[in-house]
Amino acid sequence: MQTQYWLELAGTFFFAISGAIAATEKSRPDWFGVTFIGFITSIGGGSIRDMLLGAYPMSWVADETRVYMIIAGIAFTALFFNLLRKLRRTLFLFDSLGIALFTILGTEKALAYHVSPFIAAIMGMFSAIMGGVLRDVLTNEVPVIFRKEIYATACLAGASLYLLLRYNGIGREFSMLSSAALILIIRVIAVKYRLSLPHFRQPIATTKGEYQG
Amino acid sequence: MQTQYWLELAGTFFFAISGAIAATEKSRPDWFGVTFIGFITSIGGGSIRDMLLGAYPMSWVADETRVYMIIAGIAFTALFFNLLRKLRRTLFLFDSLGIALFTILGTEKALAYHVSPFIAAIMGMFSAIMGGVLRDVLTNEVPVIFRKEIYATACLAGASLYLLLRYNGIGREFSMLSSAALILIIRVIAVKYRLSLPHFRQPIATTKGEYQG
Amino acid sequence: MQTQYWLELAGTFFFAISGAIAATEKSRPDWFGVTFIGFITSIGGGSIRDMLLGAYPMSWVADETRVYMIIAGIAFTALFFNLLRKLRRTLFLFDSLGIALFTILGTEKALAYHVSPFIAAIMGMFSAIMGGVLRDVLTNEVPVIFRKEIYATACLAGASLYLLLRYNGIGREFSMLSSAALILIIRVIAVKYRLSLPHFRQPIATTKGEYQG
Repeated sequence: MQTQYWLELAGTFFFAISGAIAATEKSRPDWFGVTFIGFITSIGGGSIRDMLLGAYPMSWVADETRVYMIIAGIAFTALFFNLLRKLRRTLFLFDSLGIALFTILGTEKALAYHVSPFIAAIMGMFSAIMGGVLRDVLTNEVPVIFRKEIYATACLAGASLYLLLRYNGIGREFSMLSSAALILIIRVIAVKYRLSLPHFRQPIATTKGEYQG
Repeated sequence: MQTQYWLELAGTFFFAISGAIAATEKSRPDWFGVTFIGFITSIGGGSIRDMLLGAYPMSWVADETRVYMIIAGIAFTALFFNLLRKLRRTLFLFDSLGIALFTILGTEKALAYHVSPFIAAIMGMFSAIMGGVLRDVLTNEVPVIFRKEIYATACLAGASLYLLLRYNGIGREFSMLSSAALILIIRVIAVKYRLSLPHFRQPIATTKGEYQG
Repeated sequence: MQTQYWLELAGTFFFAISGAIAATEKSRPDWFGVTFIGFITSIGGGSIRDMLLGAYPMSWVADETRVYMIIAGIAFTALFFNLLRKLRRTLFLFDSLGIALFTILGTEKALAYHVSPFIAAIMGMFSAIMGGVLRDVLTNEVPVIFRKEIYATACLAGASLYLLLRYNGIGREFSMLSSAALILIIRVIAVKYRLSLPHFRQPIATTKGEYQG
């Protein structure tokens, strides 16, 4: 459990950096705005998962160490801002490590609330992606999960592998490592070859959008 | 209760279709994006109601059948996409059936948590409309409930009728049917005659928007 | 406690007015739209705090008097609309009174759930600002907390002062009054002298925004 705790803190730190950098790419936010966005990006996914599960107390509410990690992430971003923006590949790896980790830990936490494996995989994916969704909604962007290379789907695939391994008696450490590796590999391949999921059916061009759903 | 369960599944199915079609009217979402929007449209209203009530476990978390209905709704949309877009009146009816049903079931669920009738009516309306609100926020639109013919108000009227009947000793089945019918009738009349609620007071044109609320 | 209850109702009333006026500054909302926005502005912050704490039942769900105060606030806005828009300074004071009050009450409520002082201060700030954040997200605006004079930071400062005084054995009434006064004073000075927090580091102009966080 000690290792898992440190991994969670690391994920929190990296998500705060990712949120802070995304925030600066819009307008000219002040220090509070950047910290707020970093905070929401970091704890948003886990908070939504916990609100859906009724899993109280939430980990960041019960243990403020996570909030310190977010503040450290913001300070780190301010200090090494230009360096971070040059190291895009490093950042991409950190973000991918973050979602891989949060997916597996979120899936595990959901299982502890006796949900079915399918629901647990959805909760794992939510843990990883919902912080970014909230960040995009707050900065008035269409969420990046609708625009980018295979992202949330990679989380679902990793969560599914984890559940498959665990339900077949494979050990926890090996299952975590393989599933996180699967998420990382899918992300790296998708970005390298610009792979996307196929588009959904398109409206016929001549049809006006009149439906009032 | 068996009938109610099947009605809930049907509502979930229709809301997923409505969400998927709304999603395709924006940009060109991929399969994940459409499924995600359909999912949020379907389970968003009930989830917000349950988070406000503290009603755990949520029904879709405890029973993944609802998630299967959403996936079925997305598949159905993909298969019969052009047909569905031609059948706008049918879709409008399905959406209206969906909100009528979710309003009454949401009102009932809130009553089970010992809230006052007024709060129960608000929770019923939230169950019906909040999925669509989340859908619009995620696709970066001003929520449709602020733009369209009497919609949320119809839900409030139906919920109020339901509570009135129930508190006067009328049976559950008859109360549900009459209240759902009221919602449907208000919606049909509002759309047919393009009725809207009156506009609120307008700012005086010469006043600049300087208030910093 | 009786005084606190009346203060809460007053804060709810003022936030509903502030939300309603903000809603009319966008498009031309109908009565439902204005009431809905006023409602979310008023109860949104406390609801998010309670969902994060798992503090059920929420106060507005258990006591519908708050909802009546919101409706009264909307009616008041409709009746005295032009007057209210002329009294910008009065409105600014009411809004500032509202956030000062909600910050301190939210901090206290969080402490009752045995969180650390730092987390309690965050919860106090959330109680005050999140209703406005939801209002801005629903009306498709970048949240005002990212754009305006020191606002959320004033709440954090007030919450910190409150906690400092309380943990040093100062009485509740005096602590509340001094902390609310601090929030008010910071806001008045910030608006009068157009003070903002310093901007965060900026991206180098020549770097294209390619990061995929």
